[in-house]
Amino acid sequence: MSDPQTIAKNDPFLDLDNPQHPANVICELCRLFYDNNWVTGTGGGVSIRDLDGDNKNLVYIAPSGIQKERLEPWEMFVAELPDETVLRTPNEGGYNKNYKYKASACQPLFMSCYKLRDAGACIHTHSQNAVMCTLLWEDKVEFKINHIEQIKALPRLQVNAATGKVEKVGSLENFDTLVIPIIENVPHEEDLVDDLEAAINNYPGATAVLVRRHGIYVWGENIWKAKVYNEALDYLLELAIKMKQNGIPTIKN
Amino acid sequence: MSDPQTIAKNDPFLDLDNPQHPANVICELCRLFYDNNWVTGTGGGVSIRDLDGDNKNLVYIAPSGIQKERLEPWEMFVAELPDETVLRTPNEGGYNKNYKYKASACQPLFMSCYKLRDAGACIHTHSQNAVMCTLLWEDKVEFKINHIEQIKALPRLQVNAATGKVEKVGSLENFDTLVIPIIENVPHEEDLVDDLEAAINNYPGATAVLVRRHGIYVWGENIWKAKVYNEALDYLLELAIKMKQNGIPTIKN
Amino acid sequence: MSDPQTIAKNDPFLDLDNPQHPANVICELCRLFYDNNWVTGTGGGVSIRDLDGDNKNLVYIAPSGIQKERLEPWEMFVAELPDETVLRTPNEGGYNKNYKYKASACQPLFMSCYKLRDAGACIHTHSQNAVMCTLLWEDKVEFKINHIEQIKALPRLQVNAATGKVEKVGSLENFDTLVIPIIENVPHEEDLVDDLEAAINNYPGATAVLVRRHGIYVWGENIWKAKVYNEALDYLLELAIKMKQNGIPTIKN
Amino acid sequence: MSDPQTIAKNDPFLDLDNPQHPANVICELCRLFYDNNWVTGTGGGVSIRDLDGDNKNLVYIAPSGIQKERLEPWEMFVAELPDETVLRTPNEGGYNKNYKYKASACQPLFMSCYKLRDAGACIHTHSQNAVMCTLLWEDKVEFKINHIEQIKALPRLQVNAATGKVEKVGSLENFDTLVIPIIENVPHEEDLVDDLEAAINNYPGATAVLVRRHGIYVWGENIWKAKVYNEALDYLLELAIKMKQNGIPTIKN
Repeated sequence: MSDPQTIAKNDPFLDLDNPQHPANVICELCRLFYDNNWVTGTGGGVSIRDLDGDNKNLVYIAPSGIQKERLEPWEMFVAELPDETVLRTPNEGGYNKNYKYKASACQPLFMSCYKLRDAGACIHTHSQNAVMCTLLWEDKVEFKINHIEQIKALPRLQVNAATGKVEKVGSLENFDTLVIPIIENVPHEEDLVDDLEAAINNYPGATAVLVRRHGIYVWGENIWKAKVYNEALDYLLELAIKMKQNGIPTIKN
Repeated sequence: MSDPQTIAKNDPFLDLDNPQHPANVICELCRLFYDNNWVTGTGGGVSIRDLDGDNKNLVYIAPSGIQKERLEPWEMFVAELPDETVLRTPNEGGYNKNYKYKASACQPLFMSCYKLRDAGACIHTHSQNAVMCTLLWEDKVEFKINHIEQIKALPRLQVNAATGKVEKVGSLENFDTLVIPIIENVPHEEDLVDDLEAAINNYPGATAVLVRRHGIYVWGENIWKAKVYNEALDYLLELAIKMKQNGIPTIKN
Repeated sequence: MSDPQTIAKNDPFLDLDNPQHPANVICELCRLFYDNNWVTGTGGGVSIRDLDGDNKNLVYIAPSGIQKERLEPWEMFVAELPDETVLRTPNEGGYNKNYKYKASACQPLFMSCYKLRDAGACIHTHSQNAVMCTLLWEDKVEFKINHIEQIKALPRLQVNAATGKVEKVGSLENFDTLVIPIIENVPHEEDLVDDLEAAINNYPGATAVLVRRHGIYVWGENIWKAKVYNEALDYLLELAIKMKQNGIPTIKN
Repeated sequence: MSDPQTIAKNDPFLDLDNPQHPANVICELCRLFYDNNWVTGTGGGVSIRDLDGDNKNLVYIAPSGIQKERLEPWEMFVAELPDETVLRTPNEGGYNKNYKYKASACQPLFMSCYKLRDAGACIHTHSQNAVMCTLLWEDKVEFKINHIEQIKALPRLQVNAATGKVEKVGSLENFDTLVIPIIENVPHEEDLVDDLEAAINNYPGATAVLVRRHGIYVWGENIWKAKVYNEALDYLLELAIKMKQNGIPTIKN
């Protein structure tokens, strides 16, 4: 019997030698996010579209219920847009016969970001800063903050009148008001799809959606942009909590 | 005189080359838990049953009063269930003649989890989130939280009417109420056994017990499940403290 | 096509084998600062003057909008004082043809520190401790603290009457009052120059300037001094927040 | 000219190949303490007596004003008890001709611990938990806590009536009251000696002294015990702050 490293050498969906390959980047970022307490206890996940590959419609997704900091490249699911046809599961290819991998419950939500926003990558975390903001502003359906320098790291998005598509036209200014919609959590993650899609459509300027008592979904034109947006948002959510606790409004007139 | 690495090669209770061996995993996790401030100052410990070995009744346990982040595989005690016969101590085999290792005071408590719940591993930490929750709810004998997504990482446990044994039948839902019993601390850790066993028996749905002003005991069907449950619980305990401090009830009706 | 490592070997502005070379130290410190949450989301930056090189007027600066923890030495801009002539950009030399690097918006601010204070290095972070202090003391134009031991890590600066230059004449005492000016943020970082320069001139005893709702600029006679000053200041800003939240004045009479 | 690594091979006070050698352990622990924010900005320090060497009266001490996480073994001062004769400075032996090392201002304080308590090692940190506890209990000259499990990691010390020496006779119980004296800070660290020695003499049960608005001194029978005591104390100081902020008394009757 071969070990996974050996089998992976002939796996057309993997490339262990290329650190920028989606399957490898997902593993690297999940380890980083674990250290931030964003994906502990198997929570959260990362998904990347193979933008540098031959088929830009391939989407790599970490499986369900796995320790995110211990992911291996060969454990990924691969689906093809737009039909979400599953082209690869870690249950095939002879990698592991003792465990039955399941697709992530986040998968349909990631797909919404790919389809509605033509995203290149999507990150989902259980960040406590995200959860606390949805609790501290429990009666609100939007998280809002302005006049903080870090806001500049977020993209300025705009609907292209000709194509109807949301496009990045620059970056926000520090005095701009960043608005992130908050949707309510539901028992089954896949049932979030309708509310997530409504939020994405109703907030063309947003690159993220908060889920009350749950976490955040962040997407971007590629994985490194999604990572930077997620970092900047988490910084702002953390700061907003501190501001709220000290009686400082997050919106300055 | 040989060094421990060399002696260990012929030690029937060790396997330095197998990263999944209980003695090796205990060392790895103690280093991880040290970084989380869960086992600093020699506090806490980890114990693993050799589920992948020939004798599934062997239990590996870190010794007492040792710096947990500096543990070496050969420093483990090994006891056999159900009689808790000690089959191996680090004081024998020629490893170290200058130090007399003592069995962990947690050992009888770990044994209760193995015997009453057929656990595969047991984790004990001095997590400040655990201690603070027992202080913030000092008049309560249960920690309770519901309607938080991370709750889904915990197991749904149920008594099998036929066998009388507690079995995992799935996972909790986010709207379920997670209940962790809290027992009072006593001067000598081994005297916690009766109260711990009573809590385990009275709360068949729980996979952990909080000890007031002390920490938490968490167990699972194997070490990786126990680790994930412990992470998810610590996340929820941390979040509960923040909710309490901001006047947000942990139970939503 | 050659890889960056190979090209860099013949780059007169780089020296990959010397860990003390400015381009290498910037990368090392940006990784360290990333872990402190000071430069996440592409925020902040580091600039170093080549004090050990043949031309002490060369200044190395990290580019704009790049993930700071993933910087490579060859990505630096190099400008020459006092005219700020750009002698090197990462867009030349064949390193990367797919990305157009931009000079950092912090560049003119770093230059002010070099020119007005003859600094050897300058650090800019988005530290939340810095931002929170400017919010907690929103009506003040100075951050002040005294009677804390860590103050001793900061330099005692004094105007040399003969030369008119600010010189280090020792270290502050723990009972001294540390004063850091706070300037207001503006939409475009380069427009901070006038206010930063005014603050530098008006506070000859300061080795840092806070920018409200934005972060901090810290400089020193060389990069290791600037790093130490930045660490000591962040420690004091963090402590000041805790003192304020507990009703303890930061100034003791 | 030789590099420090080469020179060190013939240095009778060093042993780079032995990870347990005092000069090497000081470097290792300073890096660890840096990550805990205990010795940033050149604050704090570690000193170790060469208990495993031929001359148990040799004391190794990190120099003054150096970045603690970047210390090298050859940068140590070595003094001999009881006269504190300096037998080695890093300014000799040809290691570095461009920098003049100064002995640590903590040196006389470390010496007090060696002489009054026959300590094997002494740790000094600027831990914010230590500083905050001296501020939250600004009107008190003792920090006190009881009924917390982690107290068990601290030693039970007792005056031997026959010799008049303080001896370790076991460990504290969790229901014991841990008492750490607090002395007032002074402008020059060496002037703390009288107050530190008075506190050591007046509190034979203490293995540490807090210095108001400054930090903590912790000692132990050897460096690993001192490290464990320091970890356990910092855990308790951190917990005490949280308790105080939530209105929970640190002393339970």
